[in-house]
Amino acid sequence: MSPTGRFLGLDIGGTSVKAGMVGPGEKRVGASMPLPTQIQDGPEVFLDRLCDYARSFGPFDAVGVGCPGVFDPGTGALRASANLQNLEGRILGQEIAQRLNLSENQVRVDNDANLAAYGEQWHGAGAGRDNMCLLTLGTGIGGGLIQDGRLFTGPHGMASEVGHIVILPKEQGGHPCGCGSAGCLETLASATHVRRRAREAGLTEDTVELCRRAEAAAGPERELLHQVGRDLGRGMSYVVSLLDITFFVIAGGFSAALPQMIEGIHETLSERRYGTPKPDVVRATLGPDAGWMGAARLAGDAR
Amino acid sequence: MSPTGRFLGLDIGGTSVKAGMVGPGEKRVGASMPLPTQIQDGPEVFLDRLCDYARSFGPFDAVGVGCPGVFDPGTGALRASANLQNLEGRILGQEIAQRLNLSENQVRVDNDANLAAYGEQWHGAGAGRDNMCLLTLGTGIGGGLIQDGRLFTGPHGMASEVGHIVILPKEQGGHPCGCGSAGCLETLASATHVRRRAREAGLTEDTVELCRRAEAAAGPERELLHQVGRDLGRGMSYVVSLLDITFFVIAGGFSAALPQMIEGIHETLSERRYGTPKPDVVRATLGPDAGWMGAARLAGDAR
Repeated sequence: MSPTGRFLGLDIGGTSVKAGMVGPGEKRVGASMPLPTQIQDGPEVFLDRLCDYARSFGPFDAVGVGCPGVFDPGTGALRASANLQNLEGRILGQEIAQRLNLSENQVRVDNDANLAAYGEQWHGAGAGRDNMCLLTLGTGIGGGLIQDGRLFTGPHGMASEVGHIVILPKEQGGHPCGCGSAGCLETLASATHVRRRAREAGLTEDTVELCRRAEAAAGPERELLHQVGRDLGRGMSYVVSLLDITFFVIAGGFSAALPQMIEGIHETLSERRYGTPKPDVVRATLGPDAGWMGAARLAGDAR
Repeated sequence: MSPTGRFLGLDIGGTSVKAGMVGPGEKRVGASMPLPTQIQDGPEVFLDRLCDYARSFGPFDAVGVGCPGVFDPGTGALRASANLQNLEGRILGQEIAQRLNLSENQVRVDNDANLAAYGEQWHGAGAGRDNMCLLTLGTGIGGGLIQDGRLFTGPHGMASEVGHIVILPKEQGGHPCGCGSAGCLETLASATHVRRRAREAGLTEDTVELCRRAEAAAGPERELLHQVGRDLGRGMSYVVSLLDITFFVIAGGFSAALPQMIEGIHETLSERRYGTPKPDVVRATLGPDAGWMGAARLAGDAR
């Protein structure tokens, strides 16, 4: 990152946009109240509001933008976004640059989980780790990969789709996934699907209460979260086998359940024994700031 | 690769060592009769013989060496090798450099499947592809990954272990694997395990005959190879999801069965639909030369 510039990070979520500025010497200059997304007002209104919000931070040299979904590596267009379908097809970088009177190379856009990984590896749980994988456990499961200290997004911008690794094929009873496949990791271990699994088992759907009961005593709640941990560990084992990455950061709302899942995670991770060290699995530390901080870092990267 | 040097490639296998030289302008100067490995004579005798063999090619600027197994990224010691246990713990690069009167940075050693991938991406089926995955189907299953035109081996030298991805967990009946786990891709689709599966199904263990029958008529042979293809596709789908790689090269003796497996491969690959293009799956073209050519290329890489 340029040592003297001021870089704004915007993290567009389905519910709110979080933002903050990073100034000279990589100092966090300030965050602000999140902006409600209200995408139902339409893309034009949303983008205008987003850029007003960006301007409210004062002058900056470049802006980074995190957004759920996948981007076309050629055009930069948002190809598909489950939570922001209104924005599909839009070339966000271009539209934001025009509204903010910036050149296009002053605006950089990437997937929100990728940027959360980039933030956590900068000033969070992954600081000092050149190779790590972040998983966000929320409505879905997002993944971000850091290789040799750099964000790895792949030749088509489609790498690190850990949430859409198939764990339980359809013929073995895998649940349908929003991506069109079945039995993806997301259908077993996202907050949404853990609530579904709890409901199907006759347990509370309130994940906070589910964790509390799992912690308090042995019983079906503890068993469920242990099994969710085992499923997560299966998914993570593929990251170990293929990428030789052994440091995992768990983020997102449902990461609060990590203490109840960690034993299950290590159980299935350890089934994969072929030379790599035992993986470390830790909870993210930047909370809702990871995304905008990663975006600000991306904005500051030399281009 | 340096445009003027002469680089020797050695590919150590359980049965024989294959070798060849690449000269100025990346021209293949010549290969030679393979050297029988005969590792049972002991590591000292083997290494002496290997270096005599290397000298027989005339002068060269550097040598690359491929060897099955995994290497310690710190010391370069061979950590584990199923087929060459005699060499475990040896720092091959150092021992070969001493015997050949070379400096240590004139000798580079890597895993044989990695170097086969590096060879195929240079002058074989992957020429011009910046991102690819090679799978060798033989006694086991080896994997090699190319990212952005470079060999990707991971922070501990343990990346691309596609053969040891768990496809069928133990509790679902996965077969024990040589790595200590169960249900690895290798236990479903290596030549060795396809012979086992054929035997268990009451079919011929001769894989050439198995392919012939599968091609000739519908029946249990065709069904078996289709299922092996489906298993391979499962393993490859993780490479697509995590690495965004959509070009696969199938090498090794059992790659001859690719026409009988390709439909099954694409069936399970297509279960993973989340934006990436349909993967290409092709057979390797360099045959037994891929390994030494990749090793010679590695030797010529700027250091």
